[in-house]
Amino acid sequence: MTVINEVSTVDRANSAALRLLFESEPTLVGVRPAGEVLPGMTRTTILTSGPPMPWSQYFGGQRAAVLGGVLHEGLAEDAARADVLLGRGEITVAGCHDFGCVGSLAGVTTASMPVLVVEDARSGHRGCCTLFEGDATARLNYGTYDESVERNLRYLATVIAPALNTAIEAVGGIALLPIIQRALRQGDELHSRNTAASGLFLQSILPALLDLDRAAAGELIAYLTSGDYFFLRPAMAAAKSMADRMIGVPGSSVVTAMAFSCAEFGIRVSGTGDRWFRGPLPQIETCQLLAGHTRADIEVMGGESLITEVCGLGAFAQAAAFPLQAYQGGEPSVMVERNLQMYEITAGEHPLFRIPFLKYRGTPVGIDVHRVAHTGITPALDVGIAGRGGGQIGAGSFRAPLQPFLDAASALR
Amino acid sequence: MTVINEVSTVDRANSAALRLLFESEPTLVGVRPAGEVLPGMTRTTILTSGPPMPWSQYFGGQRAAVLGGVLHEGLAEDAARADVLLGRGEITVAGCHDFGCVGSLAGVTTASMPVLVVEDARSGHRGCCTLFEGDATARLNYGTYDESVERNLRYLATVIAPALNTAIEAVGGIALLPIIQRALRQGDELHSRNTAASGLFLQSILPALLDLDRAAAGELIAYLTSGDYFFLRPAMAAAKSMADRMIGVPGSSVVTAMAFSCAEFGIRVSGTGDRWFRGPLPQIETCQLLAGHTRADIEVMGGESLITEVCGLGAFAQAAAFPLQAYQGGEPSVMVERNLQMYEITAGEHPLFRIPFLKYRGTPVGIDVHRVAHTGITPALDVGIAGRGGGQIGAGSFRAPLQPFLDAASALR
Repeated sequence: MTVINEVSTVDRANSAALRLLFESEPTLVGVRPAGEVLPGMTRTTILTSGPPMPWSQYFGGQRAAVLGGVLHEGLAEDAARADVLLGRGEITVAGCHDFGCVGSLAGVTTASMPVLVVEDARSGHRGCCTLFEGDATARLNYGTYDESVERNLRYLATVIAPALNTAIEAVGGIALLPIIQRALRQGDELHSRNTAASGLFLQSILPALLDLDRAAAGELIAYLTSGDYFFLRPAMAAAKSMADRMIGVPGSSVVTAMAFSCAEFGIRVSGTGDRWFRGPLPQIETCQLLAGHTRADIEVMGGESLITEVCGLGAFAQAAAFPLQAYQGGEPSVMVERNLQMYEITAGEHPLFRIPFLKYRGTPVGIDVHRVAHTGITPALDVGIAGRGGGQIGAGSFRAPLQPFLDAASALR
Repeated sequence: MTVINEVSTVDRANSAALRLLFESEPTLVGVRPAGEVLPGMTRTTILTSGPPMPWSQYFGGQRAAVLGGVLHEGLAEDAARADVLLGRGEITVAGCHDFGCVGSLAGVTTASMPVLVVEDARSGHRGCCTLFEGDATARLNYGTYDESVERNLRYLATVIAPALNTAIEAVGGIALLPIIQRALRQGDELHSRNTAASGLFLQSILPALLDLDRAAAGELIAYLTSGDYFFLRPAMAAAKSMADRMIGVPGSSVVTAMAFSCAEFGIRVSGTGDRWFRGPLPQIETCQLLAGHTRADIEVMGGESLITEVCGLGAFAQAAAFPLQAYQGGEPSVMVERNLQMYEITAGEHPLFRIPFLKYRGTPVGIDVHRVAHTGITPALDVGIAGRGGGQIGAGSFRAPLQPFLDAASALR
């Protein structure tokens, strides 16, 4: 009897958490400098991906990206000096999740960087994310900071962000759920594949483009159609705004965040608030690397795009995105099986996010740490892969480690 | 020995026919009045779908649509007079296929109507098709001719066609294969689902839109984003230009056209040139009708969009388009099985048109009348459904009749 009561209490709490997620209406309202819109953000704060750690524990590409962020912000004349200031705490390194945003890969976010501002039309709750850096190999978020990266970051801040902000305001904000729903019927899972969503986003601001300055409109079109990944960032910001709604429901065992740094993977759970349960890095299940690369070249630099999986997208919608095979390896039957497996560890099915191949069944959503602990099945994750020395060298389907879920389940009991 | 030699001769001929299809590079070069670009077209010619018949044999919605075409062209003051002129042969009713174009549903095409002009970049061979009439229920091609239909046809001819033609010319023509290839990875099969392709088409003319007159650009965007079916017509014109390349390869048993009128279904085969092999109308396998309608309300008014199936699209790519369930009924496992069945009656696999769910296998293409005759399996067809009294009332997956394939196989022997 005790067990039954306990289970039903948890189930009720999880249903309450999911209701908050389901009633969200994430709307892109603008593109503003992070320092203007992120609560608590200062010029000397550098945000990065994953459960936060002391500066001395960041290494490799993620460390390089944070140093690049300091230089981009003009807070130090060179990387050595930036390292000293970070070591002394004169510049602070902190986790994106604690500042209302999420980071892609290394996820470096600084005060002057433009972020997409997504607001829940019902609660006013916000989630933010920096802009896609374009399809160049050298990108700050993939651990590279050089002249070309700096030039591109300035271009994003001075040309793309203002034009995009004007267009978004001109159309009165952009409701993101309809784009996500349609994209799921067009081969996207909204994490590693955003091809259709990026096109649908462009369509949604078309009328406003006609009223922009001709040159600005041309630049914006070129940016939005370069590569097929623009929409990952609005999807992440939307997911952050939705997932955060679930924080703090007493007794709920539903995951509200998954993220990793260069060193650790971590989760947060509704009923335990902002506590991170940490564990080892996710493991590769299948991956596809660019020609000339092997698994030995892979370097983990962090990542918080897993917030899409938290909301029933990404690997939780793989059966909506068979074209992903060409990008991250794998094959359709395995993708379907993996997707079906996620129903075993989730508390519900999304009423709007639906998978055509599964006869329009709602995606599995609300990762329940008790179910993960009970089954030993951990969340599947669609992830971009960085290489040693910087740059993207591939993508893959990963698995989260079990330990953080076991620890969270214990903490809740 | 004779049999073996015969088979290998046919196979060689079919391979030669398919090579012509595969080397085509259909490019949309403009939107022009049919009278300007269709060889042999005159002001008193009314083209319609299907193997052509004497005027007296057309009935119902297709007859109404032809009469509407006469009135639209200003050739008679009313339908009674139009009927007399058609009966006397002073106005000629003819088949689209004989004039280098294809028709959607009733397929009525008259001299002043704008048609999409698709040209094979290699051979210069052309295929044409009228413009999508928009998502209103009342459309000439669904058997209705009234004031609203006439107003819309004029709007297409005077506002949309010139703006679209300017944009197409400004970007130097639009290569259609890349759009089709991408759309197959985004849930389209390019016959009954063209959602992604329509968006990709819009993207391809975006730079030119910025240089159009502001009002014209606004109208064009509104038209191209109303409904998700714009691209069916460029797909049909492209398919016509590709399929026609296969005509007249001696001994080839590959189908070059499938079409139906209100009364008959017919096919043409490469080795027998422009001869139509006729049979009864296709049968419904699964369908979905708008609320309030039953199968008794269905009226056949013709259709030549089956040219997409001839080229390995439509029902021959159903496993690329699971979202079709919501539009024409059926379910994923049946769609996959049906798609796989089409490999049994085709002579090849398309090198560019690929199905993500089938591990990027090329679509079955080159319907071989001998294989159809031998297996008894006839082509599956994705078709829009018209209702008595006009208008679209649904869509479905149909099957072609066997007789025309048996007759063609006999004629070739």
